[in-house]
Amino acid sequence: MSGAGTGGILDVPSGRPATVPTPLPGDARLSRLSLNQKTTDRWSVGEAVAGCVRAGLPAIGLWREPVQAIGVPAAARLVADAGLRVSSLCRGGFLTTDDPAQRRRAIDDNLRAIDEAAALSAACLVMVVGGLPPGSRDLAGARERVADGIAELVPYAAERRVRLALEPMHPIYCADRGVLSTLGQALDLAGRFRARHVGVVVDTFHIWWDPDVLAQIERAAERIAGFQVCDWITPLPPDALLSRGMMGDGHIDFRLLRRAVDATGYDGDIEVEIFNAEVWAADPEAVVATVARRYVAHVLDV
Amino acid sequence: MSGAGTGGILDVPSGRPATVPTPLPGDARLSRLSLNQKTTDRWSVGEAVAGCVRAGLPAIGLWREPVQAIGVPAAARLVADAGLRVSSLCRGGFLTTDDPAQRRRAIDDNLRAIDEAAALSAACLVMVVGGLPPGSRDLAGARERVADGIAELVPYAAERRVRLALEPMHPIYCADRGVLSTLGQALDLAGRFRARHVGVVVDTFHIWWDPDVLAQIERAAERIAGFQVCDWITPLPPDALLSRGMMGDGHIDFRLLRRAVDATGYDGDIEVEIFNAEVWAADPEAVVATVARRYVAHVLDV
Repeated sequence: MSGAGTGGILDVPSGRPATVPTPLPGDARLSRLSLNQKTTDRWSVGEAVAGCVRAGLPAIGLWREPVQAIGVPAAARLVADAGLRVSSLCRGGFLTTDDPAQRRRAIDDNLRAIDEAAALSAACLVMVVGGLPPGSRDLAGARERVADGIAELVPYAAERRVRLALEPMHPIYCADRGVLSTLGQALDLAGRFRARHVGVVVDTFHIWWDPDVLAQIERAAERIAGFQVCDWITPLPPDALLSRGMMGDGHIDFRLLRRAVDATGYDGDIEVEIFNAEVWAADPEAVVATVARRYVAHVLDV
Repeated sequence: MSGAGTGGILDVPSGRPATVPTPLPGDARLSRLSLNQKTTDRWSVGEAVAGCVRAGLPAIGLWREPVQAIGVPAAARLVADAGLRVSSLCRGGFLTTDDPAQRRRAIDDNLRAIDEAAALSAACLVMVVGGLPPGSRDLAGARERVADGIAELVPYAAERRVRLALEPMHPIYCADRGVLSTLGQALDLAGRFRARHVGVVVDTFHIWWDPDVLAQIERAAERIAGFQVCDWITPLPPDALLSRGMMGDGHIDFRLLRRAVDATGYDGDIEVEIFNAEVWAADPEAVVATVARRYVAHVLDV
């Protein structure tokens, strides 16, 4: 079973033999591959930047907490010195609270996130909009508050040339993480604003099941602000928040979705974002190498 | 915290004090309440029928395996002698295989399920259509095979006056259980057939998150063959197949959805179907009593 020319290398976390050689730095196939740093959760920003450079990845998706740990200017310098693009900053959002004081704090936090995205020259600020407030069953109300919050943030973001990217989330997260549940719904909301100010994130994990997904990707067109890939695996891991899989370990037809996204004219980065305890337990260097191999084998055309 | 007039009774599995007295047999509010026997998984058909009678529930949802355990004629006699309606038989379906021999077996099994539903005078045969075949990522193909399979079953079912009820399932189950993911998608498929032959199941757990749910319930109209309720709870229990909650323990606005279903003219039974390890570990008698209380407090108008 060991792939020709793969030298007995094993993919992580599956432990299965690699089916393709690891693409080397400079390989044109890596020209759009971005490592979302959550995929190598143990690494600091500096370590993740260095890991991308070693692997030949031209872009990185950053998270606010590790960026804040070293300070935004230091993080901006690290990525700039390494010549990396910042394909996204994760994350703003959490705009569903019905408590006025909490809402004020959420808006203020989003303004800071916008400043950070601007300082990092991030292609977009990913918006995870939030779930139902504790004890609430008013889903329509929560969705309206998201729309109001986005409307309040857009002028500030536009002034700083930061694009807000609404992320529709898998319905498994509707109650506790994100009440935007389909790409169509995210586009309905994004459509209230200019495309250069508010876009959407197409994340295969969140939308692969949607019977309308191909039509909605086509509709999204220039609204696509980011494209993220990871797999849906079964049995679903016990912690729903850590249920994502390495591309190829699950059920998603990545090529189908990538081609649909490409057909819109989107030529930005393709970010690999995997929340998974087994991936996090593996050697981050091996994770990045597997990401590159699986990206070539499952996301790109062969 | 103990509710006035509830005599210190505790709901299961939450252990919280009951907020309303248990409705007694003959209470008009119970006139549409059906116990899906999976909610009291430990009970045989005979025990579940007796439990419904003691609690004053006029209907039961049956499952094929426990029915087969005592034989279909015996089960039919039990429910008839008790004067219960059979609000549904669970379940047919699993039509997504791409292997011809397996498909033949699946069709044959569905024909038997139709015979059983006819013998039990079940209001509908619930169709859980199946997930992706092992190793397959062809979601569109799986969905087409479901449509083909339903088309093959309809004449046989129609002849026996059995109504097939397509159950859209929460996208969490798309890979491994049901590739019909939204009510709209189920209605698109059902619409290929006469409404009296193919309907849909509206299950709050599966569809509550859908931004389009109210419009699709209105569209469903006379296609509604069954209405099931249980809650979406967080954190999601570790086993995704046992993640359903008792009404009131989670995030679903049941009244909103029940009113929308009522507005279509649906006046059939409202079935409580809960797959949950804690519910199954509780005393089934206490489960039925809690079901009746929570139904009155959370599903019906107060």
